[in-house]
Amino acid sequence: MRLLYHFSLDPASRFARLALAEKKLDFALREERAWERREAFLDLNPAGEVPVLVESEGATVAGAPAIVEYLDETTGGESLIGTGAVQRAEVRRLVQWFMAKFDRDVTRYLLGQKIMDRLAGRGVPDAMLIRAGLTNLRLHVDYLGWLAEHRNWLAGERFSLADIAAAAHISVIDYLGDMPWDANAAAKDWYQRIKSRPSFRPLLTDRVTGAPPPAHYADLDF
Amino acid sequence: MRLLYHFSLDPASRFARLALAEKKLDFALREERAWERREAFLDLNPAGEVPVLVESEGATVAGAPAIVEYLDETTGGESLIGTGAVQRAEVRRLVQWFMAKFDRDVTRYLLGQKIMDRLAGRGVPDAMLIRAGLTNLRLHVDYLGWLAEHRNWLAGERFSLADIAAAAHISVIDYLGDMPWDANAAAKDWYQRIKSRPSFRPLLTDRVTGAPPPAHYADLDF
Repeated sequence: MRLLYHFSLDPASRFARLALAEKKLDFALREERAWERREAFLDLNPAGEVPVLVESEGATVAGAPAIVEYLDETTGGESLIGTGAVQRAEVRRLVQWFMAKFDRDVTRYLLGQKIMDRLAGRGVPDAMLIRAGLTNLRLHVDYLGWLAEHRNWLAGERFSLADIAAAAHISVIDYLGDMPWDANAAAKDWYQRIKSRPSFRPLLTDRVTGAPPPAHYADLDF
Repeated sequence: MRLLYHFSLDPASRFARLALAEKKLDFALREERAWERREAFLDLNPAGEVPVLVESEGATVAGAPAIVEYLDETTGGESLIGTGAVQRAEVRRLVQWFMAKFDRDVTRYLLGQKIMDRLAGRGVPDAMLIRAGLTNLRLHVDYLGWLAEHRNWLAGERFSLADIAAAAHISVIDYLGDMPWDANAAAKDWYQRIKSRPSFRPLLTDRVTGAPPPAHYADLDF
């Protein structure tokens, strides 16, 4: 069976998991603690990063951007990137917004300081970096809310990779208990719709030892 | 005419410029000092980042990943991503390697500390960060050399976006005078072949005021 090397709280891994599930593809998960730099894993992806997808016939696809485009090219059904070159460009703009900009502005600070550095044995959290992440988060939640208010889904009429990329990051920040849900009703409404999708359910049962999520994390009516 | 908002030493802008030129498309360049956060530019790309492509009929495509995929979908001729889903995944893996990993490990430190922070008025270079970038660069040059030695072009038989992404970053590091060309003959040979492509010529005349490149920067036989 198709196998995805992943780490449960890694947003890029969640991006790939959600895309696989939305495409209704069967896959098994294998947790990879990439920071341990296991040699057999480095052979699969010299970048030493999750996610990596290994197809049942052995083809390896490394990295979230390659995986989601590969799935779009090789599977039938509705495209998660959408139709029409300009609409597809809008989806990819927002994927980059969340996977690169949100990651740099918010996720690295909060997930990095609160969880990943501890797991990798890189010392104690820096309160100043956490504060920077929380400040940046407010601006991003405003933009997310603006999109959710003006469009049916984030990139337009239809659910797309843009929603999946946003959900991958937002759900990790929510696991940390840092989402200011009271600050933006439109953003919260969008996330409620995301949370109730079947593709999303498995993520709500993810747990990292020693870092439990807040009570509302798995609650559909938060 | 098609217009590309860019900054000459920004690797993501170079990635888009090279893709446009390899596709033999006519385009005009407009320098955007994105750090000045000009309002009309933020309307084009709320992320406030170059590159942004504006088509003659007005369609806007923001961000390098969206631009290169858009060009691949809308223009004829040979695909710069290649053919076959697995080969295309390999090209996208390497694009991500250079545009994300190399950027994070090397370019942000060297370009950031030596040029961008000064332009944006963010203080003096930090020698420790520059040393970190130079150390990481050696590992990346080894990997680049390994790919160049084992394959015709970086992702396989044919020239692709992987070569363009690598060239976009390597050429900026070379502008700074930081490329250890004597350390890897295969990497140097690959860059010599890149430099002699017509698409690459305009980049060799780029100059940033107050930060001239080393003499060999524009030299095809360096």
